[in-house]
Amino acid sequence: MIIVFKPKTKDNDLNRVIEKVENLGLKTHISKGEETTIVGLIGDTTKVDARMIEVDEAVEKVMHVSEPYKLANRAFHPEDSIIDVAGVKVGGQHLAVIAGPCSVESKEQVIEIAKAAKAAGANMLRGGAFKPRTSPYAFQGMGSEGLDILVAAKEETGLPIVSELMDARYIDEFNEKVDLIQIGARNMQNFDLLKEVGKRCTKPILLKRGLSATFQEWIMSAEYIMASGNPNVILCERGVRTFESYTRNTLDLQAIPVIKELTHLPIIIDPSHAGGKWWLVEPMAKASLAAGCDGLMIEVHNNPEKALCDGPQSLKPEKFETLMKQLTIIADAVDKKL
Amino acid sequence: MIIVFKPKTKDNDLNRVIEKVENLGLKTHISKGEETTIVGLIGDTTKVDARMIEVDEAVEKVMHVSEPYKLANRAFHPEDSIIDVAGVKVGGQHLAVIAGPCSVESKEQVIEIAKAAKAAGANMLRGGAFKPRTSPYAFQGMGSEGLDILVAAKEETGLPIVSELMDARYIDEFNEKVDLIQIGARNMQNFDLLKEVGKRCTKPILLKRGLSATFQEWIMSAEYIMASGNPNVILCERGVRTFESYTRNTLDLQAIPVIKELTHLPIIIDPSHAGGKWWLVEPMAKASLAAGCDGLMIEVHNNPEKALCDGPQSLKPEKFETLMKQLTIIADAVDKKL
Amino acid sequence: MIIVFKPKTKDNDLNRVIEKVENLGLKTHISKGEETTIVGLIGDTTKVDARMIEVDEAVEKVMHVSEPYKLANRAFHPEDSIIDVAGVKVGGQHLAVIAGPCSVESKEQVIEIAKAAKAAGANMLRGGAFKPRTSPYAFQGMGSEGLDILVAAKEETGLPIVSELMDARYIDEFNEKVDLIQIGARNMQNFDLLKEVGKRCTKPILLKRGLSATFQEWIMSAEYIMASGNPNVILCERGVRTFESYTRNTLDLQAIPVIKELTHLPIIIDPSHAGGKWWLVEPMAKASLAAGCDGLMIEVHNNPEKALCDGPQSLKPEKFETLMKQLTIIADAVDKKL
Amino acid sequence: MIIVFKPKTKDNDLNRVIEKVENLGLKTHISKGEETTIVGLIGDTTKVDARMIEVDEAVEKVMHVSEPYKLANRAFHPEDSIIDVAGVKVGGQHLAVIAGPCSVESKEQVIEIAKAAKAAGANMLRGGAFKPRTSPYAFQGMGSEGLDILVAAKEETGLPIVSELMDARYIDEFNEKVDLIQIGARNMQNFDLLKEVGKRCTKPILLKRGLSATFQEWIMSAEYIMASGNPNVILCERGVRTFESYTRNTLDLQAIPVIKELTHLPIIIDPSHAGGKWWLVEPMAKASLAAGCDGLMIEVHNNPEKALCDGPQSLKPEKFETLMKQLTIIADAVDKKL
Repeated sequence: MIIVFKPKTKDNDLNRVIEKVENLGLKTHISKGEETTIVGLIGDTTKVDARMIEVDEAVEKVMHVSEPYKLANRAFHPEDSIIDVAGVKVGGQHLAVIAGPCSVESKEQVIEIAKAAKAAGANMLRGGAFKPRTSPYAFQGMGSEGLDILVAAKEETGLPIVSELMDARYIDEFNEKVDLIQIGARNMQNFDLLKEVGKRCTKPILLKRGLSATFQEWIMSAEYIMASGNPNVILCERGVRTFESYTRNTLDLQAIPVIKELTHLPIIIDPSHAGGKWWLVEPMAKASLAAGCDGLMIEVHNNPEKALCDGPQSLKPEKFETLMKQLTIIADAVDKKL
Repeated sequence: MIIVFKPKTKDNDLNRVIEKVENLGLKTHISKGEETTIVGLIGDTTKVDARMIEVDEAVEKVMHVSEPYKLANRAFHPEDSIIDVAGVKVGGQHLAVIAGPCSVESKEQVIEIAKAAKAAGANMLRGGAFKPRTSPYAFQGMGSEGLDILVAAKEETGLPIVSELMDARYIDEFNEKVDLIQIGARNMQNFDLLKEVGKRCTKPILLKRGLSATFQEWIMSAEYIMASGNPNVILCERGVRTFESYTRNTLDLQAIPVIKELTHLPIIIDPSHAGGKWWLVEPMAKASLAAGCDGLMIEVHNNPEKALCDGPQSLKPEKFETLMKQLTIIADAVDKKL
Repeated sequence: MIIVFKPKTKDNDLNRVIEKVENLGLKTHISKGEETTIVGLIGDTTKVDARMIEVDEAVEKVMHVSEPYKLANRAFHPEDSIIDVAGVKVGGQHLAVIAGPCSVESKEQVIEIAKAAKAAGANMLRGGAFKPRTSPYAFQGMGSEGLDILVAAKEETGLPIVSELMDARYIDEFNEKVDLIQIGARNMQNFDLLKEVGKRCTKPILLKRGLSATFQEWIMSAEYIMASGNPNVILCERGVRTFESYTRNTLDLQAIPVIKELTHLPIIIDPSHAGGKWWLVEPMAKASLAAGCDGLMIEVHNNPEKALCDGPQSLKPEKFETLMKQLTIIADAVDKKL
Repeated sequence: MIIVFKPKTKDNDLNRVIEKVENLGLKTHISKGEETTIVGLIGDTTKVDARMIEVDEAVEKVMHVSEPYKLANRAFHPEDSIIDVAGVKVGGQHLAVIAGPCSVESKEQVIEIAKAAKAAGANMLRGGAFKPRTSPYAFQGMGSEGLDILVAAKEETGLPIVSELMDARYIDEFNEKVDLIQIGARNMQNFDLLKEVGKRCTKPILLKRGLSATFQEWIMSAEYIMASGNPNVILCERGVRTFESYTRNTLDLQAIPVIKELTHLPIIIDPSHAGGKWWLVEPMAKASLAAGCDGLMIEVHNNPEKALCDGPQSLKPEKFETLMKQLTIIADAVDKKL
């Protein structure tokens, strides 16, 4: 962290700020230029709130040199983390292929989709039981009953289950029934939920990027979970909000190399939510894999025309099967196992 | 709602979609052009999920004609709602002036600020007890103890209390101690919290706009609270996220006339969080009032240099006092009472 | 400018970078921490391209301390610039009120509007002769004939003329006929046009902010004009592009205090283009003035229903007159002359 | 185009609008619901300005059904356009691989890079002679001399030349020396330049997407060029501006399938400008190809540390060679020829 002072700062102003910083347990290194004085902070600045220094009237600005996260930071953990989801590895060369309907609608539906997805090569099953919907009048999901249907599909197919948790009240139930617990984009900065999930969830967490979250904010939310006790976090890019409205969101595939540079956590891509149109899923899934992602999350529905949620972005099982074949070739090209 | 079909749609495709729509309880009106067929839906479309129709392969797109919200809609409630916060009216000609520190730090601090704020003309006291922080290592607020300090300040000054609720577990405590319960920007689409707040909160709700929430999404979140049983919602614009990073966020003052056009709810402005710099507060507070807002929420701190949170955007009491004097003149010009 | 080196940088790497910097005519100040070495640059860094230093593999990042503009910089020119537009002063206490149709359509139209605008208190006349239109099939403006009509309206009313220049080929004609030459948002980074305008325009320039231009980029475009020889630049905020599409653009009124902090140039606001709806103009014009702008640019049309361009955002003369009366009261409150 | 009227519109209001529309040469189809009347427009609505209808006080809103472009529209030209650039085909199965330095710096530099690029598999040479720079104090390019150096490199290697045109004054020179004329992101809506380029350029045009241009605006700019007489347009995605600042821009790879759905024009990707960091180029180039792009534009520099412009995003020739090998495998997987 570097403190840049205003031009012609006087010594007593300088000393006041230095004292404040040293009270936080940091050492300082002063560099006086002709016009500007700069003070570098030496020590662990992770826990320093820059704005508490910036507020001093002698300070022009405070600049970060090192990143404000530690547990998620690649610098302190150079190897890729490989997360185990009920026996399915994610990270390194291991790809997660998570398929299934946006929302659980019935036992028959889920089991039919789960079998087709597995046959095509998926290694996890997704399905929403508790649904975050923009409108209070839209279908809100089947809740606990939906989770039970997913469990039945797991018994039938052996596929681990991925489902979204929206409220800490359901953590015990999710621990029991779900294998990879998703925190949705709209809850990425629901800090109380992050803390509870870190403290109490015994399963790995799939943390989606918020609609307008920077890379750093997203990593800081992973840090919340990790600092609260759960080190098993997988990140999921699902599109960010921009001025473009033809697509539901703008899928930011630069996230893949960036997250791999900054952290050791696996990153998977959800091309279904990003585009909101089924015909965008295939090219974006291929692109994601070519860019080196650790997995894909793809909405598959046996009857999108009757889906209660997000039908337009779902692939039919036969389209998913074709996609999986194409992905296999790309996986070879980028040294991943499918 | 209007359904636009793809060019040269056949009758059996058309009929399939019409049947689907009529099963939802709506009537249809068909309009066949030379190229394109259009079907208008007649009836209450609030509860229709456009994407469930859009998914049909014969459909080009589905367009909304009417807004998807009812309880918040100005069309069904032409008069301004006036919300009573422990005796202080907000809406119509009545302005809320909510002042106080970003976070509660000590009893002395809060009482000193509360007295100064009241003397300068504020009619409510704000203070964060539970703080949403981007970093898990930053000060997270004093919690329940912080609320008790606010209650003590209320006893001293008579100012109603505004504080942020981040988790449904604390609703009973907030009902008891807080007069206007804030839902923060990062929880604007924490739908489970919105439902609980609608069901169980006995006090009015201050709903902040999410960092990248459209007007419609924001209003839909108010609709969640209202549909769950709490009609007393005040909206608060606090800046949205854009490409510009010199300011913390971009304050969208067009929200004031837009919200008044679309809804009957009061809207207040928080210029402190939007800009992130104290010297932006004064001009933006004046602008907000000139544009017709129903209130202002302004961070005031007796010692910003030592503030544990957001010091750089806080006004000192004497600056707040000067601002209040200037606001009085503007209030006259726009026919509001201060 | 500060250069932050990667951890454990070796001396020969450090020296290579320092040599590079000193070859640019700058002095350096080295600060070695335990982990990180930081080098501050002393001298005029305006002309240093940070990316030319950042490219060195020993460098972690390069941070700007001072702003990269000089001529527009408030630091080197503390007083407000007051620009004279054919006798009408803009800046300081002097407000520009520029009214008129989006596009010049006929002599009768423009003269009628000009008279009404003047009667209501406008002190300049706007009108588009060359129109930037998104579609090649839309009305492209009357061109030179349109400028002649504006000149006729000036003869009739005495109001100086504001019109947009889109191509350097017309500079001589604009110098002759127009009093304040507008560079539109879409040409804000048409650098060849900026240079020509700086070199050859004998009249002041009104530089609109680009749809996604940061404050700094906008000021740099002003710097282009000033560095090319024309110091008379007025800035105009007209809304930026965000995720919100209910309004045409998001009007960024924080631009007013920010531009005044960073530069000495006047800033005016165009609420008509920002919102795209006539009923947003009145509240936003009042807000702009309350925030301390140096002028307003407002579309006024005697018959918006028949306007060839942007009718929905135009005020009728009687609405403009009412607005001017309200603005007079706000002007008093912020110590501006109307 | 569909006109939605306000609730309870009277017949004379309805008739006034219908008359206006029919005067534009369109037929109408009226659909009266219980509350709302809707009028569909039949005929060529490409040249209708929706806002001229929206302005009528009886009109609630005007919605587009068909796209406002014709010449670029896939609907009227179902096959992929294949553009010939001095013998190199772009589109269909044919990939453009455009490599070279950001800016031309010397003859030796360009020829060395051109040879290396060709040896690695590039089929066109890029190089900036006229440079759009944010700062007036930054290196502005070598101008005509730079173009001559590119011509010399073409003579040496046979690679066609791609370079950016910033001003219509240089069109004759570009026609003579350059094979694919680039219009940069900042000039994407410099409509006078687009018209001139359409009228007078005898070579194909590479049209970059503006930093905040929607797909439709971008296509409309292609339509400008095509409607002015030049049908040979290649589109180039180079990242859009968002809230994320860790990367220079956010690369929108959904543009690839979207542009292919909406238009028949080839689309190439520039991963160098999008990310601004050389290590993002490889994964994004692979992703682009996997998503089905028609070409790549990659900055290659023999000595990035000394590059006068954008060194940090340039690949060294050996890295480019490695990338080309990996691309060959991906090209096979997506049925493209490299």
